[in-house]
Amino acid sequence: GTFKVLALGGDHIGPEVVAAGLQVLRQVADQFGVAVEIEEDLLGGASWDVHGTFCTDAVAAKARAADAILVGAVGGPEWDNIRIAGPITETDGLTRLRIELDVYNALRPARAWPALLHRTPYRQEVVEGADLLVVRENAGGIYYGEPRGREVLGDGQERAFEISEYRTGEVERIARCAFEAARGRGGHVTSLDKSNVMESGKLWRETVARIGREEYPDIQLRHLLMDYALFAVARAPQEFDVLLADNLFGDLISDLVAVVSGALGMLPSATLPAAARVGHPVKGGLYEPTHGSAPDISGQGVANPIGTILSVAMMFEYGFGLPAAARAIEQAVDRVLAAGLAPPDLGGTDGTATITQAILRNLHPI
Amino acid sequence: GTFKVLALGGDHIGPEVVAAGLQVLRQVADQFGVAVEIEEDLLGGASWDVHGTFCTDAVAAKARAADAILVGAVGGPEWDNIRIAGPITETDGLTRLRIELDVYNALRPARAWPALLHRTPYRQEVVEGADLLVVRENAGGIYYGEPRGREVLGDGQERAFEISEYRTGEVERIARCAFEAARGRGGHVTSLDKSNVMESGKLWRETVARIGREEYPDIQLRHLLMDYALFAVARAPQEFDVLLADNLFGDLISDLVAVVSGALGMLPSATLPAAARVGHPVKGGLYEPTHGSAPDISGQGVANPIGTILSVAMMFEYGFGLPAAARAIEQAVDRVLAAGLAPPDLGGTDGTATITQAILRNLHPI
Ligand SMILES: CC(C)[C@H](C(=O)O)[C@@H](O)C(=O)O
Ligand SMILES: CC(C)[C@H](C(=O)O)[C@@H](O)C(=O)O
Repeated sequence: GTFKVLALGGDHIGPEVVAAGLQVLRQVADQFGVAVEIEEDLLGGASWDVHGTFCTDAVAAKARAADAILVGAVGGPEWDNIRIAGPITETDGLTRLRIELDVYNALRPARAWPALLHRTPYRQEVVEGADLLVVRENAGGIYYGEPRGREVLGDGQERAFEISEYRTGEVERIARCAFEAARGRGGHVTSLDKSNVMESGKLWRETVARIGREEYPDIQLRHLLMDYALFAVARAPQEFDVLLADNLFGDLISDLVAVVSGALGMLPSATLPAAARVGHPVKGGLYEPTHGSAPDISGQGVANPIGTILSVAMMFEYGFGLPAAARAIEQAVDRVLAAGLAPPDLGGTDGTATITQAILRNLHPI
Repeated sequence: GTFKVLALGGDHIGPEVVAAGLQVLRQVADQFGVAVEIEEDLLGGASWDVHGTFCTDAVAAKARAADAILVGAVGGPEWDNIRIAGPITETDGLTRLRIELDVYNALRPARAWPALLHRTPYRQEVVEGADLLVVRENAGGIYYGEPRGREVLGDGQERAFEISEYRTGEVERIARCAFEAARGRGGHVTSLDKSNVMESGKLWRETVARIGREEYPDIQLRHLLMDYALFAVARAPQEFDVLLADNLFGDLISDLVAVVSGALGMLPSATLPAAARVGHPVKGGLYEPTHGSAPDISGQGVANPIGTILSVAMMFEYGFGLPAAARAIEQAVDRVLAAGLAPPDLGGTDGTATITQAILRNLHPI
C-alpha cells in the first residue's frame, strides 16, 4: 500500500529542515520501492497567522489519518505573548498533536559520530562509541496534570501551580517501550526519577521495577536519581544504553545527551502511540528533530537538516517497517560528516542545501 | 564573641567527612583567632536508630540556636523501607532542618581545579577556568507543595501526585540572593525554568525579570529553558557564572556542574536563611557537601573530605564573615591537589586522613 505522510514545517527554520527531510524521504522511498503520498500543512505560529489557532481541527484530523507525521519546529517571539485561556493543548499546536495522537513513547537517540568527536567538549576516549536512547513518557506528568494555573492570594502575592502526577498504567506502558527498545540494543535500561522526593517518582520506580522483573527478566535494569544521573551521564556517556524517564525528566535528559553528538541540530526523534517492535510498523507516529525553531538563524539557509533527516530515517524504521532504509540514511550522514562537511552549529560553514545534497548523493540502498 | 557550631555527621561516610571538616574548622579558627564552640549530635538514620525519628526536637532546637550547622550526609538502605505517614519533613531529617531554619538560599559553587582538569571528561581548553555558582531555591516548589500522595482509582490503578508551586515572594527573595551573589562575582545571572510548560515557571521568569530590572540593573540577566540549559552548561561551562533555579531544577543543575570539578565529592554548599552580602555574616546557615552518604564505601576511610572542607570554608566566609579564612582553605586544597594527591572518586588512592592531613599542613593564614 501507499504510506500517507503529513508534513508540518511549522515556524522559522522548521519549513527549511522539513523541505530537506522531504527530499530524502522521496529519494529513499524511490530507492526502496516504497510508495509515499506527502501532504503539507501548517502548524504553530504559521497556523495562527492564517487560522487564529496553533493547530486547526483539519490538521488534527489529517494527522490522525496519516501513517506518519513529519514536523519541523514551532514557535517564535512573534507568538510568545499570545495569551489563550485553556489547557496547554490550546496554546501549543505540537502539544495538541501529541495528545490527539496519544503518542506517549518518545524515542530520542543520540550517538557520538566518529567524524564529530572533536566537535564535542569531550576528550575523544570519553565519548567515542557513545550510543544512547532516551525513552521519554510524552503524554502525561507535569505537562498535563489538572488543575493548574495562577491565583492572587489574600496578601496580594500571586501563586502559580501545576500538578505532577502519574497513574500505574501510564508508567507500565512506557516501561514496556523502554524494555522493548533495550532488547534491540545493549540490553540495559537506566530508569530516572526523584523517588526520594516525589510521590509520582516512587510510583514510577516501583512500577518500572515490577514490569522489569515480571516481563523483562532478560534486560538489566538500574534506577538512578535524576540529579545524580545528570552527573553520571554527562561524565561517562559510554556507560549508558537506554535512559527511561517521565515527561519532564525525559525532556531534560534528551537535551543533555545532545552533548555527545556535538549539537542539538543532530538529534532526531520518533514519538509513537505504541512500543516499537522489530517487524511491527507503527501507524500514526510523529517524527521531528528535537531542536527548536531558531528564529535567530531562520531564512538564512544555514539550519542543520541532519536532525530532521535522521527523523525521516526513524520514520522508515518504525513507521514503514524498513530498518534497512534507516541504516542507508544513517550511513549517508556518516559519510558526509566523514568527508568533513559541517553546518554552522557544529562549527562548520556548510548550509542546509549543501549538507542535504551531499546526503542525497551518498544515499545507496544497502 | 564565640561562634556556636552544631556538627551533625549523619550516616555512613557522613561522620567520616565531618570529622575531617571539624579538624580544619578548629585549626583555621585558631589561626584566625576566632572562638568556636562545637557540639556534635545525630541526624538521619543514626538518629532513627537511637531515637526513632530522623531529627529530634532537641536537635532542631540546637540548630535554631547555632551560628552555623555542619552536616555530613544522611540516609542508606537500612532506612529506605521505613514508611512514616506525614510530610517529607517527618521522613527526612535534613529536610526538617532545612524547613525549620528556613534556609531557602542554597549556594552551590563548582569550579575547575587546575590540577584536576585531566580528571574531568572535558578537553582542557573547554573546562579550564570554569567557575560556576548555583543559587538554588531550597524551601519551596515541588518538594513541599500540599496536598501530595497516592490514591487508588475506581479502575484499580494507583495515582501518585504532588503539587509544584511558587509564590511571588518566594521567587523575589531567592532572585535577590542570586543577584547579590553575582555582584561579588562575574556579574551575570542565568535563570533556568520551563516557563513554556509550567505555570510556576512563568511566574518564576516574570518575577526574576522584574527584580533584575528594578533592583539590579547592573547585573546581566539571561533566561534559559531548563532543557536547553543542561545542554548549554554541559557543553560550554566557561560561559556561565551564576545559575539561578527553583528547588527541583536547582537540585538537578547542581549535580551536573560537578562534572567540571571532576567528582561530586569536591562540591561544598552553604544553605542560608538570607542573601549573602559581603561584610554581613549570616547566622543559622547549614553547610554540607552535596554528595550523598555513599554506603558502598563507608567505614573504609576512603571518602573524599574536600566537599566538606570547602563547606567549612563557606562557613568562615558567610557564617563568620571571614572571607580570608575561606580563601586560605581553598588555597590549601589547591596546593594539595597540585601536589598530585587525589582520593579514589578522582581516580587516586589517597584516603580521607591523608588528604585531610595534607590540607591541614598547607593551611597558612593569608
Ligand atoms: C517546546 C517544548 C514544549 C517541548 C517540551 O518541553 O516537550 C520541547 O522542549 C521538546 O523536548 O519537545
Ligand atoms: C537527598 C535529597 C532529598 C536532596 C535533594 O533532592 O534536595 C539532595 O539531592 C540534595 O541535593 O541536597
